[in-house]
Amino acid sequence: MQHFEKKELEGLSKIYRLNLINSVTGYKSAHLVGTISPSGNKNLAVFSSIVHLGSNPALVGFILRPTTVPRHTHANMKSTGIFTLNAITKHQIEDAHHTSAKYPEEVSEFDLTNLEPENKKNWKAPYVKGAPIQMGCRYVNEYPIHENDTLLVIGSIEHIYIQNELLCEDGWVQLDRGEIVSINGLDGYALPSLLDRFEYARPKK
Amino acid sequence: MQHFEKKELEGLSKIYRLNLINSVTGYKSAHLVGTISPSGNKNLAVFSSIVHLGSNPALVGFILRPTTVPRHTHANMKSTGIFTLNAITKHQIEDAHHTSAKYPEEVSEFDLTNLEPENKKNWKAPYVKGAPIQMGCRYVNEYPIHENDTLLVIGSIEHIYIQNELLCEDGWVQLDRGEIVSINGLDGYALPSLLDRFEYARPKK
Repeated sequence: MQHFEKKELEGLSKIYRLNLINSVTGYKSAHLVGTISPSGNKNLAVFSSIVHLGSNPALVGFILRPTTVPRHTHANMKSTGIFTLNAITKHQIEDAHHTSAKYPEEVSEFDLTNLEPENKKNWKAPYVKGAPIQMGCRYVNEYPIHENDTLLVIGSIEHIYIQNELLCEDGWVQLDRGEIVSINGLDGYALPSLLDRFEYARPKK
Repeated sequence: MQHFEKKELEGLSKIYRLNLINSVTGYKSAHLVGTISPSGNKNLAVFSSIVHLGSNPALVGFILRPTTVPRHTHANMKSTGIFTLNAITKHQIEDAHHTSAKYPEEVSEFDLTNLEPENKKNWKAPYVKGAPIQMGCRYVNEYPIHENDTLLVIGSIEHIYIQNELLCEDGWVQLDRGEIVSINGLDGYALPSLLDRFEYARPKK
């Protein structure tokens, strides 16, 4: 096995360390975050840091680096109070990845990719058309993480749209039925297949 | 598509809502967290909330519900200052899931599963033998999330061990070469395969 100690990690080149630390921590969720600016510009950005924070109330969290992209996403959700989360399928990965390019605020990623906006009633932020899971979320709060000057942003889930074939009887959503991807590192996209689903674990007698 | 509004989410049965909200937010990382109590009891618990927080310094975060399992993990890492993160492979999913059963503090999950502890030099917390990625981490800080009384725990990565065949030339770790799984909801385990890896995205001319 290859072994890296803290001192060695600190001495690595920036790109090598970015690749290593971003991928060594395991698979990440893959979402397109849709926002709209107060003047009406639609914005779309790929995120791999969306996590489940709690179910009641239904909350998500994600990490933001204020000094890098996607600042427009952050500015928009703070000023309008809303955003959307859209699951990424295997057919969308190239376009999804391209939304990480740094465009000026007035440029919409919808115009530069094959991804199409979908407007739904009572929600100004754009969804991604055809995404098997779409969520309308409200900006709730943010916490500064002092260890590395990032932000943990908290959102509440106000609307969920799921393609019928993904939703099981007990509320569980089988993601591979929608060919939803996960992210490996900064730039790798992987397609999971379900292996098994287990019962609630109880102690052995 | 099936549509759930906020009001409907609040009215769902507890189990249905747990399944829905835990799975609708996408794939999650799959880790076994190893700790040791001050009196020497080894503890192992499955976590699906480990996220990358930053690369320089190398930091991870995860969400903890103080009122539920795995409290022993949290108590141990706070008192000893250290823990390990071990990637879960497809051959370990049944045992990994079983570590979520509620055992008394003095019971070691290593004794109740086929998972074996591995001790490495200068690190008292146990690793999981055979895990393709093992990380020795130090407890750094925790932030209370007031919206739902959870904790964001921050850890720093001090040691990384990776099976050679996973590590690429530029530092990127190809997770599917280790048959590393991801988690769908509370109890679904999926095996991803790499689709593609893209270049750093630059604006189209």
